[in-house]
Amino acid sequence: MTSLLYPLLDPLPDPAEAPAAPSHWLLTPGPLTTTATVKRAMLHDWGSWDGDFRALTASIRHRLRDIAGVGEDYTVVPMQGSGTFAVESALTTLVPPDGGVLIPVNGAYGQRMVEICRRAGVRHAVLEIEETSALDPQAVAQRLADDPTLSHVALVQVETSTGILNPVDEVAQVTAAAGRRLIVDAMSAFGALWIDPAKAPYEALVFSTNKCLEGVPGMGFVLTRVSALEEARARGPGRSLSLDLVDQWAYMERTGQFRYTPATHVLAAFRQALDEFDAEGGRTARYARYRRNYDVLIAGMAWAGIKPLLPEALRSPIIVTFLAPVHPAYSFTAFYDAMKRRGFIIYPGKMTRVESFRLGCIGAIDVPVMEECTRACVAALKEIGVEVQD
Amino acid sequence: MTSLLYPLLDPLPDPAEAPAAPSHWLLTPGPLTTTATVKRAMLHDWGSWDGDFRALTASIRHRLRDIAGVGEDYTVVPMQGSGTFAVESALTTLVPPDGGVLIPVNGAYGQRMVEICRRAGVRHAVLEIEETSALDPQAVAQRLADDPTLSHVALVQVETSTGILNPVDEVAQVTAAAGRRLIVDAMSAFGALWIDPAKAPYEALVFSTNKCLEGVPGMGFVLTRVSALEEARARGPGRSLSLDLVDQWAYMERTGQFRYTPATHVLAAFRQALDEFDAEGGRTARYARYRRNYDVLIAGMAWAGIKPLLPEALRSPIIVTFLAPVHPAYSFTAFYDAMKRRGFIIYPGKMTRVESFRLGCIGAIDVPVMEECTRACVAALKEIGVEVQD
Ligand SMILES: Cc1ncc(COP(=O)(O)O)c(C=O)c1O
Ligand SMILES: Cc1ncc(COP(=O)(O)O)c(C=O)c1O
Repeated sequence: MTSLLYPLLDPLPDPAEAPAAPSHWLLTPGPLTTTATVKRAMLHDWGSWDGDFRALTASIRHRLRDIAGVGEDYTVVPMQGSGTFAVESALTTLVPPDGGVLIPVNGAYGQRMVEICRRAGVRHAVLEIEETSALDPQAVAQRLADDPTLSHVALVQVETSTGILNPVDEVAQVTAAAGRRLIVDAMSAFGALWIDPAKAPYEALVFSTNKCLEGVPGMGFVLTRVSALEEARARGPGRSLSLDLVDQWAYMERTGQFRYTPATHVLAAFRQALDEFDAEGGRTARYARYRRNYDVLIAGMAWAGIKPLLPEALRSPIIVTFLAPVHPAYSFTAFYDAMKRRGFIIYPGKMTRVESFRLGCIGAIDVPVMEECTRACVAALKEIGVEVQD
Repeated sequence: MTSLLYPLLDPLPDPAEAPAAPSHWLLTPGPLTTTATVKRAMLHDWGSWDGDFRALTASIRHRLRDIAGVGEDYTVVPMQGSGTFAVESALTTLVPPDGGVLIPVNGAYGQRMVEICRRAGVRHAVLEIEETSALDPQAVAQRLADDPTLSHVALVQVETSTGILNPVDEVAQVTAAAGRRLIVDAMSAFGALWIDPAKAPYEALVFSTNKCLEGVPGMGFVLTRVSALEEARARGPGRSLSLDLVDQWAYMERTGQFRYTPATHVLAAFRQALDEFDAEGGRTARYARYRRNYDVLIAGMAWAGIKPLLPEALRSPIIVTFLAPVHPAYSFTAFYDAMKRRGFIIYPGKMTRVESFRLGCIGAIDVPVMEECTRACVAALKEIGVEVQD
């Protein structure tokens, strides 16, 4: 430890700069509100080559495998960049050139997987469904039966563009029954909505630091069967050096390090986020809190006459799409600004045909925040001249 | 502003958690030591869709262009991931299929550009040079004359693997004279060693948050001519959705937002780092401080009989490779641990034939740190049983 006092390194932090309550609650599907302690874990600079940082990386990898509830036949490979980078890395590495991937699409993130495959030349077939409809596992089974060259199915667990919860268990079962393999974009739900590997066999899950595990954004993860990486390795190197999942994994296994500079502070915050996840009671407690947030949100909004887009059976306690009030004074921008003045950052809708907005239930927020949020919605709508019940 | 008090959001920070001096000085080429104020800029959660965050992104883009000293014919495109991701994004987007790129290689980062091109199918030619040798601009001119299909040259400004400073001005001039275009991996030096666009015409520079601009790692940048992006756009979409520089740029120009979730906290820290860069006096002052660090380092080590690998003319005040003492008791691991106990994180060498280690001159460190570092080197070597002069 050095005792140097150095002018560039500043005086003790002013407590006012790290307030206990944030200036705004992020009711968004990530980046989301994180605890002060998660953010404070970024107040240290790590050497990425150092043994302490290697240990941090190793512990994150193990703990994520435990959260998924899988054994040593799986491994977790962190990937720099946003969640999309990890999805691209999984699809381009795991789907073989002589195979192909069936992608059921009922929203923007399913569509993004199609675009990734189209660009990268990964063979794929699309099963397009209405954005507001449940996915039919039998349709997946049928397409797999029709096309024996499809080796994989890639599915979004919770389509964040609407909040729809797709039937992962059923799709996993028909996929396994057909002898194919499942890749799940579990980005928005991992850590809260568990995919039980005994009920829903999968080859890989993709997720990131900044959703239900409540870290800050900057890193993604691919949890995958070791055997899938070994098969990919035997096929030879991928076209993208940066996004090559096999290289990333093999180098990390050999050295304990990242091939290229990782977002060290983001990973330090993420380790703290995992500590807080455990302290809260793991995925059951995390789910229960989000479920309370969701219940309060739905009830509070209903009370103001604002209805969710989807029927209850399709909704998830992750993010909810609400139909905007049909009123000449309503505009999303005005509503957004009025909410922001009240301390809430909300999210625009992604529907093309109906005016909507989205509110997230995830992040370091609990019932009192959701209650205040629904009160703020009513007040904000009144302020911009939209009549609501209250 | 909300006044909610919420249990998950913690009490005021304990000043002891954010010490004025770090527990360890990172004498590494990034991640490096950042100021406490840069790290403290991460104590806030940003909504990535929000207007304040868009303004933050826009200001970073403009300020980087100013630091480079170029005008509106250039634009800065941030890219998620590590620096390598930005390099891959630049090479794969900017070099056209009917062109090709000449890559002079005298170290690991030049080699990495070759590997990126090899994987991605970007046509390229390699000009391989000794790792400890200066690059010969005439050899570049000759290769360009020999092969008119080569449309680009891609060069590493400071080869961090040895610390060698390549002759960017001269290479830029022969490249321009031959009517070709230059892409510079300026990762390790941007912000400290200026490339004057009047003397060294270039098409693109690639760099990241966590080197001489003294931010934390997690984002890269490609500064490039707008016309180069327009030409790439006309050629159609790239093979990697995540690393498509044209898409990233076009979406950002249209919406002010990132296509995919950015590392919000990393960018907030980076804005603070740019404020501190300006307050210090910009690139001249930054260079001068690193130069002082370098002078003290070289002098202090010479005094202990430890010599740099490269002759002075090839060295840069960014990172220095030192020849390890030739002594049976020396091992890098033992030396590393002894240095770490003294509060310094050092960096291994990358030379295959000689035993070496590297010390960085960059980051939020100044002369007193470098003095203490050289004293620590002597003490650490003695501790592990290596005799040194002192
Ligand atoms: C289901 C799903 N997939 C993929 C992504 C993409 O993640 P990112 O924005 O980090 O690239 C998101 C982001 O919200 C998501 O919700
Ligand atoms: C010259 C140069 N290029 C590229 C890189 C790669 O950057 P990253 O490790 O962030 O991928 C580095 C990192 O040290 C570098 O010094």
